[in-house]
Amino acid sequence: MTFSSKGYAAWLPSDRWQDEQRIEAWRPLLEQIDARMELRAAGPGAAALQELANGIEILTGTPPSLTLKAGSPPVIVLGSPQAAQRSLEELKALPLAEEAYALRIGAASENENQDGEQAAYAILRGGSERGLLYGAFALLRLIDSDPRGPRDLDLAESPRNPLRMIDQWDNMDGSVERGYSGGSIFYRDNRILLESPRIDDYARLLASVGINAISVNNVNVHREETKLITSALLPDVRRLSDTFGRYGIQLFLSVNYAAPIELGELDTADPLNTDVQHWWQRKVAEIYAAVPDFGGFVVKADSENRPGPFTYGRDHADGANLLADALAPHGGLVMWRCFVYDCHQDWRDRSTDRARAAYDHFRDLDGRFRDNVVLQIKNGPMDFQVREPVSPLFGAMPRTNQVMEFQIAQEYTGQQRDICFLVPQWKKSLDFDTLLNGAGCTVKQIAAGKVHPFTRSGVAAVSNIGNDDNWTGHHLAQANLFGFGRLAWNPELESDAIAEEWSALTFGADTPVARFVAKLLLESWPVYESYTAPLGVGWMVQPHYHYAVDVDGYEYSKWGTYHFADRDGLGVDRTLATGTGYTGQYADENRDRYDSLEECPDELLLFFHHVPYTHVLKSGKTVIQHIYDSRFEGADAVDRWIARWRELEADVDPERFAHILHRLEGQSENAKQWRDAVNTYFYRKSGIPDERERTVYA
Amino acid sequence: MTFSSKGYAAWLPSDRWQDEQRIEAWRPLLEQIDARMELRAAGPGAAALQELANGIEILTGTPPSLTLKAGSPPVIVLGSPQAAQRSLEELKALPLAEEAYALRIGAASENENQDGEQAAYAILRGGSERGLLYGAFALLRLIDSDPRGPRDLDLAESPRNPLRMIDQWDNMDGSVERGYSGGSIFYRDNRILLESPRIDDYARLLASVGINAISVNNVNVHREETKLITSALLPDVRRLSDTFGRYGIQLFLSVNYAAPIELGELDTADPLNTDVQHWWQRKVAEIYAAVPDFGGFVVKADSENRPGPFTYGRDHADGANLLADALAPHGGLVMWRCFVYDCHQDWRDRSTDRARAAYDHFRDLDGRFRDNVVLQIKNGPMDFQVREPVSPLFGAMPRTNQVMEFQIAQEYTGQQRDICFLVPQWKKSLDFDTLLNGAGCTVKQIAAGKVHPFTRSGVAAVSNIGNDDNWTGHHLAQANLFGFGRLAWNPELESDAIAEEWSALTFGADTPVARFVAKLLLESWPVYESYTAPLGVGWMVQPHYHYAVDVDGYEYSKWGTYHFADRDGLGVDRTLATGTGYTGQYADENRDRYDSLEECPDELLLFFHHVPYTHVLKSGKTVIQHIYDSRFEGADAVDRWIARWRELEADVDPERFAHILHRLEGQSENAKQWRDAVNTYFYRKSGIPDERERTVYA
Repeated sequence: MTFSSKGYAAWLPSDRWQDEQRIEAWRPLLEQIDARMELRAAGPGAAALQELANGIEILTGTPPSLTLKAGSPPVIVLGSPQAAQRSLEELKALPLAEEAYALRIGAASENENQDGEQAAYAILRGGSERGLLYGAFALLRLIDSDPRGPRDLDLAESPRNPLRMIDQWDNMDGSVERGYSGGSIFYRDNRILLESPRIDDYARLLASVGINAISVNNVNVHREETKLITSALLPDVRRLSDTFGRYGIQLFLSVNYAAPIELGELDTADPLNTDVQHWWQRKVAEIYAAVPDFGGFVVKADSENRPGPFTYGRDHADGANLLADALAPHGGLVMWRCFVYDCHQDWRDRSTDRARAAYDHFRDLDGRFRDNVVLQIKNGPMDFQVREPVSPLFGAMPRTNQVMEFQIAQEYTGQQRDICFLVPQWKKSLDFDTLLNGAGCTVKQIAAGKVHPFTRSGVAAVSNIGNDDNWTGHHLAQANLFGFGRLAWNPELESDAIAEEWSALTFGADTPVARFVAKLLLESWPVYESYTAPLGVGWMVQPHYHYAVDVDGYEYSKWGTYHFADRDGLGVDRTLATGTGYTGQYADENRDRYDSLEECPDELLLFFHHVPYTHVLKSGKTVIQHIYDSRFEGADAVDRWIARWRELEADVDPERFAHILHRLEGQSENAKQWRDAVNTYFYRKSGIPDERERTVYA
Repeated sequence: MTFSSKGYAAWLPSDRWQDEQRIEAWRPLLEQIDARMELRAAGPGAAALQELANGIEILTGTPPSLTLKAGSPPVIVLGSPQAAQRSLEELKALPLAEEAYALRIGAASENENQDGEQAAYAILRGGSERGLLYGAFALLRLIDSDPRGPRDLDLAESPRNPLRMIDQWDNMDGSVERGYSGGSIFYRDNRILLESPRIDDYARLLASVGINAISVNNVNVHREETKLITSALLPDVRRLSDTFGRYGIQLFLSVNYAAPIELGELDTADPLNTDVQHWWQRKVAEIYAAVPDFGGFVVKADSENRPGPFTYGRDHADGANLLADALAPHGGLVMWRCFVYDCHQDWRDRSTDRARAAYDHFRDLDGRFRDNVVLQIKNGPMDFQVREPVSPLFGAMPRTNQVMEFQIAQEYTGQQRDICFLVPQWKKSLDFDTLLNGAGCTVKQIAAGKVHPFTRSGVAAVSNIGNDDNWTGHHLAQANLFGFGRLAWNPELESDAIAEEWSALTFGADTPVARFVAKLLLESWPVYESYTAPLGVGWMVQPHYHYAVDVDGYEYSKWGTYHFADRDGLGVDRTLATGTGYTGQYADENRDRYDSLEECPDELLLFFHHVPYTHVLKSGKTVIQHIYDSRFEGADAVDRWIARWRELEADVDPERFAHILHRLEGQSENAKQWRDAVNTYFYRKSGIPDERERTVYA
């Protein structure tokens, strides 16, 4: 079975610890499990118990003994029940939110039994079965990432973001749009792969980092996928929903706005037409009859040639509310994507600015959306580039639920061939202070629903998995899926903590490989940025493929994606005074900072300004010299990684050693191609040589 | 049946003439057919008779009466047998080559019968049944393209090129590589579509313009196509061979050089290995047992990642001779493609020149190839660009059979969305004087086998048809398939004669539409060139797609396809003195002309020289001004075509009017995108404004 290959288990327990002392140290805590909860075979509580028992057996080689009794709230006690007794009563009395868990470990020597043996215990209590499941995975992480043995701990956690969602861009033909890890684990030949054990294991992976919602088909809903909401396929959707439901994950479907037409039942999809309204009401009732735990719809409408309310002269509020009204009686949500822009733009027209589009389309609709509509807003105003400012729409609609959308799939960030650990990039967005209600209105506070009175909010992200043995193509790309979940749960976690935790779980706690991998991950986004498009300008990639360098690839296109490089300079003037006025979409203080050539951060300079090659950055370098220097530095960094990785050959299994080496060598080649193509491009245009006289090809 | 749509019949008779006088004028000649030949139902003679009878019935509305007797040589007499008697004896005595035909028409008033009625006749004699078939189609063309009625004629024709071949790039999954007219007519779902009536009709179309060989699968032979030479599929190949054989067309297959390995029978494909030699001998014997009229193999080896003899340290002569030796006992040929170059070139290395590759790989192998090997050499040294010099390899191997390969499929010339009538481009190649044996060694003479003692030679071309109703996507792209056949038959035909003949057959003889279409076709290659890549430099297209403009799309690629534009100038220095030395592959006089900045033709200037934007062309314009002027002129020309086409609405059926208008509008948009992207690109680089102050976007 290929699934036994290294990497399939990802960050979940996969191998018995090599260190017998470590096993001995943990044994008192891990040899006995005593669970008290209501018994539901298909519930997250049972999953929690199973994950703990299996995980412990894998890590220690010994299955724990298990007792299970009815009880509420759901509690799991590991180790000595006697020693745990007092803490157990305290924890049961603790007020906990539904998704929260409390975890107390008593490991110190005061916990001795009558025979003077150490009487360690751990108590896990959930605010619900789901909370218990999150706690179980947290406990497994703790056990597997710290080699030192049990230590006292008293912890209560609940997720900051109510919605923590994953969007699959899987198509029923088995392909994955922007997928870099093989085909779909969900579909093949236009049917749902119910027999796939991978779907179960994917649910486990997602739940282990706290994901609580998933949309299982591509937002570009083509003909076959439109049929997912028909009676022929709903029984299969139900089985998917049950699979994810067992892990506390609610199932959503992306729907085709023109479904009433495409399914041949109406000749309009006008949201104000009563036939259309009734059609969706009946359709949603049918869905909920078949799939009682259904979460709702994800909708990409009037975007990149998808149908939508614009066809009928209606706006996005009309469009979203149509579906929201149908879903409301059943408690369902509409995730309405704000990725709406003119994808037939004319590059000759410098006044139109795609960056403005989401705000211009949606901002004035604030207050018009139903309470069960959630606007899904990409983190930046363009499209998941290596570097973008935060979307000014996020937080700018106080009366409208919002989630921020990230892309775990590395479409523009190396496609899981090059390493690019995106947690620091996401944190940059989450930490951004919008200043919309004064200081402290950070994206993470808005997403958590702490700034505006959102009824539903949080974060969503496009998945990066496929049916490759290791899920993500590149082994190290697993860190992004892990990191998204951890950050969605708690955006205050630091990037290095996440990188270290993932590396320890994946390559062994406190190993040289884990230490190096964590360091490499933390360097990887700056490195990827340094050899690709400079200073926030973006888009210097081959059209459609989005991996290889093509500096002018999107320059004369209809996609609204330009750098305007000429023989004198480059960048996009988005200022209020002389540019597209995009900066005016931010709060005044942010606007002024971006507008100012002096105050605009270097990293976003070319996103906001058109400057000469000789413009001097805050770093003291000219733009052209920065371009040269950073391209060389980026490519050199990859070669340093390779050298270090080769030194670690004896410390890692041959399969992952070879795989990662091979990918790193590909990344090195890619980095050099970027370096030289970008440098030559700008040298040919500017005529300015590299001060340091390195090789810039003519 | 969609095949009844306009365009399916292409240039063959499709509609009854509207002009009753025309029908009356032809009636004496067309009401009676008297044929004398050996009777073979599946032979070209029977096809000739059937085509004539059907064609006459379609055009006049009346089926001719038919008599058929055994006789040799094969002869068909139309009209009055009495009047034809003397001529018939003369023609029967005429010495004719196998593929030749003689045609005599007696229409003048001296041919009166006893009643004073006009006793017109036409006599068609073939050098063989195939010659007769070519003559039958020639007679139909004559009848249908001249509205004035029968006139005296005495004609004997034989084809100049022994091999007149079509290469299908069809894959068994039903796709067509570089196909712009729908899917394959030959394959679907990895099987041969024997039931397709289109295959028969395609054979008719090809025979009607004198094609005598076809290779029915893509030169990139993938897994499924490798199986075409296995016992499971050979019966189906036989049926294809019979279909084409009835129209005098010999069937070839593209084969995978690694077939012995891929079919799981050997672990090597080394041409000097005796197991491999025996394998191919047995395989070829098996093929001929199943397909007695089989023509031979087409091979793309060691090219663009295809396997070949290089894998085993052998050269192309070793590789080709392996197959040639296996085919020789059965009279089969190896068409060995010379499209061999390094497709992992490094753009940073300016000394390597892809244009040199075919000559460098093959030239020194002259004399080493078997007599039944034919080298298939692309017309230019790069790859079917809008403008290239002639491949210097053609004619440079006096002891090796060669065919020149053209591409009817408009891969780089508008993809059958934009109009580009390629006959003038092909004539430019065919008329090129290589000067290899002194003056007069034109490509067409070499291809015809008149210069070197070739045993087999001629021309081949990549087909442009698919399963679109009208075969070629764009109605007007049919003219290229027609034109290739006509030119392969007789390279002395003028472009305007071919354009006019095709237009008359397709849109009616002597109609305003036919006149305009002929004019448009003749303008179309210069127009396409004038808005795309300037002065022979090529390759300014989107990678992989090859349609839309992307000036730098191939500039930093591994494909060996560069223009080297910087802020001062552009072009590729291929001179002997300062460049790659490619010019040294030509005969001295041609080399000197290309080497000289003064004498090099403007149209190829940037293919051979890197010049400043301010370099003055023979036209008196600077290079940059030429770029601006020609881009504007090209786009304007398309708009003039549209204006004229709109005026012709009443003169053409609505289906073709709308289709062509729609495509022209698309071409106009494409032309403007090219115009503006190229102009802006060079304005941004050079900083030199348009002298005439037209709009060049900044």
